Amino acid sequence: MASGKELCEGVEWRIRVVDGSSEVLVPPTGLARKVWLRTKGLISGLGMKVRMFLKQAWDMGANDPRKVIHCIKVGLALTIVSLVYFMRPLYDGVGGNAMWAIMTVVVVFEPTVGATLYKCLNRVCATCLAGFLAVGVHWIASQSGDRFEPFVVGASIFILASIATFSRFIPSVKSMFDYGAMIFILTFSIVAISGYRVDKLFDLAHQRISTIIIGTSLCILVIMLVCPIWSGQELHSLTVRNMDKLSDSLDGCVRLYFTNSNGEDDQKLQGYKCVLSSKASEESMANFARWEPSHGRFNFRHPWKQYLKIGASMRSCAYCIEALNSCINSENQAAESIKKHLSTSCLKVSSSSSSAIKELAESVKKMNKSPTIDLLVEEMNSALEELHNDLKSLSHLLNPSTTAENQISATGLVPFMEIIPVVTLASILIEISVRIEALVGSVEELVKESEMKDKIVAKEEKPEGTMKALQRV
Amino acid sequence: MASGKELCEGVEWRIRVVDGSSEVLVPPTGLARKVWLRTKGLISGLGMKVRMFLKQAWDMGANDPRKVIHCIKVGLALTIVSLVYFMRPLYDGVGGNAMWAIMTVVVVFEPTVGATLYKCLNRVCATCLAGFLAVGVHWIASQSGDRFEPFVVGASIFILASIATFSRFIPSVKSMFDYGAMIFILTFSIVAISGYRVDKLFDLAHQRISTIIIGTSLCILVIMLVCPIWSGQELHSLTVRNMDKLSDSLDGCVRLYFTNSNGEDDQKLQGYKCVLSSKASEESMANFARWEPSHGRFNFRHPWKQYLKIGASMRSCAYCIEALNSCINSENQAAESIKKHLSTSCLKVSSSSSSAIKELAESVKKMNKSPTIDLLVEEMNSALEELHNDLKSLSHLLNPSTTAENQISATGLVPFMEIIPVVTLASILIEISVRIEALVGSVEELVKESEMKDKIVAKEEKPEGTMKALQRV
Repeated sequence: MASGKELCEGVEWRIRVVDGSSEVLVPPTGLARKVWLRTKGLISGLGMKVRMFLKQAWDMGANDPRKVIHCIKVGLALTIVSLVYFMRPLYDGVGGNAMWAIMTVVVVFEPTVGATLYKCLNRVCATCLAGFLAVGVHWIASQSGDRFEPFVVGASIFILASIATFSRFIPSVKSMFDYGAMIFILTFSIVAISGYRVDKLFDLAHQRISTIIIGTSLCILVIMLVCPIWSGQELHSLTVRNMDKLSDSLDGCVRLYFTNSNGEDDQKLQGYKCVLSSKASEESMANFARWEPSHGRFNFRHPWKQYLKIGASMRSCAYCIEALNSCINSENQAAESIKKHLSTSCLKVSSSSSSAIKELAESVKKMNKSPTIDLLVEEMNSALEELHNDLKSLSHLLNPSTTAENQISATGLVPFMEIIPVVTLASILIEISVRIEALVGSVEELVKESEMKDKIVAKEEKPEGTMKALQRV
Repeated sequence: MASGKELCEGVEWRIRVVDGSSEVLVPPTGLARKVWLRTKGLISGLGMKVRMFLKQAWDMGANDPRKVIHCIKVGLALTIVSLVYFMRPLYDGVGGNAMWAIMTVVVVFEPTVGATLYKCLNRVCATCLAGFLAVGVHWIASQSGDRFEPFVVGASIFILASIATFSRFIPSVKSMFDYGAMIFILTFSIVAISGYRVDKLFDLAHQRISTIIIGTSLCILVIMLVCPIWSGQELHSLTVRNMDKLSDSLDGCVRLYFTNSNGEDDQKLQGYKCVLSSKASEESMANFARWEPSHGRFNFRHPWKQYLKIGASMRSCAYCIEALNSCINSENQAAESIKKHLSTSCLKVSSSSSSAIKELAESVKKMNKSPTIDLLVEEMNSALEELHNDLKSLSHLLNPSTTAENQISATGLVPFMEIIPVVTLASILIEISVRIEALVGSVEELVKESEMKDKIVAKEEKPEGTMKALQRV
């Protein structure tokens, strides 16, 4: 695109000819030629953009094949519902009932089981509730005579729509019934203004509800049977993955600082940033996971909210790693002798903290209390003790005179300013280990709660048993 | 609820009678009585919950009356569109066209102008595009004979639905056309499986598109004329508010540490947490703001993305304030003499940094380069210089012997461990001021870009002029 444009503006362009010399490209003067070149440039630019876009899309699909599978699932569900109605014309035209089944599949199908169930249940319940209410209002309106009918209908729509919209702002309603409130307003308005007699309305309501149930059942079947993606499982994996990332970046940053090894993977060092930015996705996953039946190792009422607490603890560690990183990249570097003095204990603290986090990740993964975590925390604390002692003995290396910077090499003592970065780093490390202990607490709480729920479920399900066994497979 | 339940389980309850003595409540034994008490308990518990819920809803409405206004707007738009169709029966029953107008209003009406415009434009464009494509596919299918028709239709639905679903995962498509992709799938499937002949399909498409246009126009009119809430304006105010909060908590934290004043408002100190958690809302607002026409002081192509950069800069400051807070709450407290030694310069740094942030907030608010910001940054830097000097001279106060902690009072020197918290705090303060300079840079960029856009718009609109003047009112 650029070459075409700039040619038109008369910029001199040179091309290298085969024999090695270069030739000036004389800008063409004919209008037709100008237009042709400009068009060519535009097209090639567009082609380039399209190629880039397709490459981006291809990479995305290759990196996460589950996205591709989701797309195929949507296509599958939609084709099934369309063909059923296409081949057996149960409907009368586009306005008929087929539409509701198709519409349900399109709007309700979400990538995860939890989100789909949330929408399905909300849609069915809200449609039923709004339908009954609207039939009632319709009856009242029809009793009030031709003159008042529009007022009764209008007022009821105004009031109920306003209230339902308001309820969508209330956090507890929003997290559970946001979609339901919208469907409620929709169904209520449509049914309330319909010109049908009440007996015909019941027929219509029956048909609409049955098509919606067909649509939702199909969605639920497809989403749960074809490579299901569970919100709960996703949240669980995200938490484990984030812990691993946190541990890697903590260890990597400190190691980079003290050993100056350039071998550290930059992506690994920046892993804590994923932890910083995953709050919103954790919340939505925990929200959807509540709707999921037991799957894999997770029971119906698995303590999903506890994952949010773990997430918050991880983020509070990640904030400190951010501050640690700024120490490492700060301008005024520390004296090498001080770095050496503290390096052993700092590295010990960081490696023991990071292996504690790794162990926590393992504990969440297996969903049982780790037998070694107490040991690792103890190890971390003894490393902290050592770091404390090293810090105390630091004052021996210190040069009490601030102006005697030229004496450093002679006496081996360093000016106070040069110890500040290392001391800051050490005290942030200490703070991180305090926060890791909070993280240990929240992981233990999760494990305990989940075991408790397991026991309750096991007790409740003893009489039946088989159902549970089937679900656990 | 609790009292009823526990009575039934035979727990001894005592009540204080008027004369001061207490009486044991004997649990009632009759079955009817038990049921009655349990029901009463349940009802009173439920009543309590409902009261709590209503109180919460009332408080929310009182705190942000715009939410109430939004609900009234939804009710208004829906009542208008319903009554138009109710009083002039242009439709044939519920399946008719009235439904599309109502449905459009319900699903398209969002709290802000930008979000509503985004949905309206996506809905109209996607419906048109999918409608034309579906008519084409329908024609091809009808040409291919009765036997192959279902296969052609099914395959086209499968392929297009899968591709459109996949496109919703691509970030650039998701941010601009997520809703449009869904509507595309919906319209395409419905039209493609319809049993109509092509000529009748055009009628239908025309009707459907016109009802959708009626619905969207009504929404746009209501949302823009009745107390409009602009995403852009919201983003702008959020940014200014967050800067103020950042400045308040920075200054408050440092002041609290050095002066031990308990008068600091705890809510003010925690203000930086709002900055930490506003990433998601900033992004969605910036996304919707792109769709808004010029309003107030903002042109159509106001540099909204720059707000996201400012937000990121603010968050990087907030991370440091988090670390600062942990210093303040840390267990090992610093020696008073050291605190006194550094207090003046630390307070100077924090107050000059926080007034720099305040000035930046003012600059964003007025959308012009602040005349005093350079001066304030200079002041901050000179305060930093002072802090550096104070830190350097700190070594005089230091006790070189680690074991001589009992000599403190005699010599006035402090052990090394007791200076660590203050030194850490000081070096985090230094880091914060570095990050504030980055914030200054991104605010200046915003102001520059917005002025540039203003000039371009002014140039482009000189010939027309009046339109712009109208919009600016």
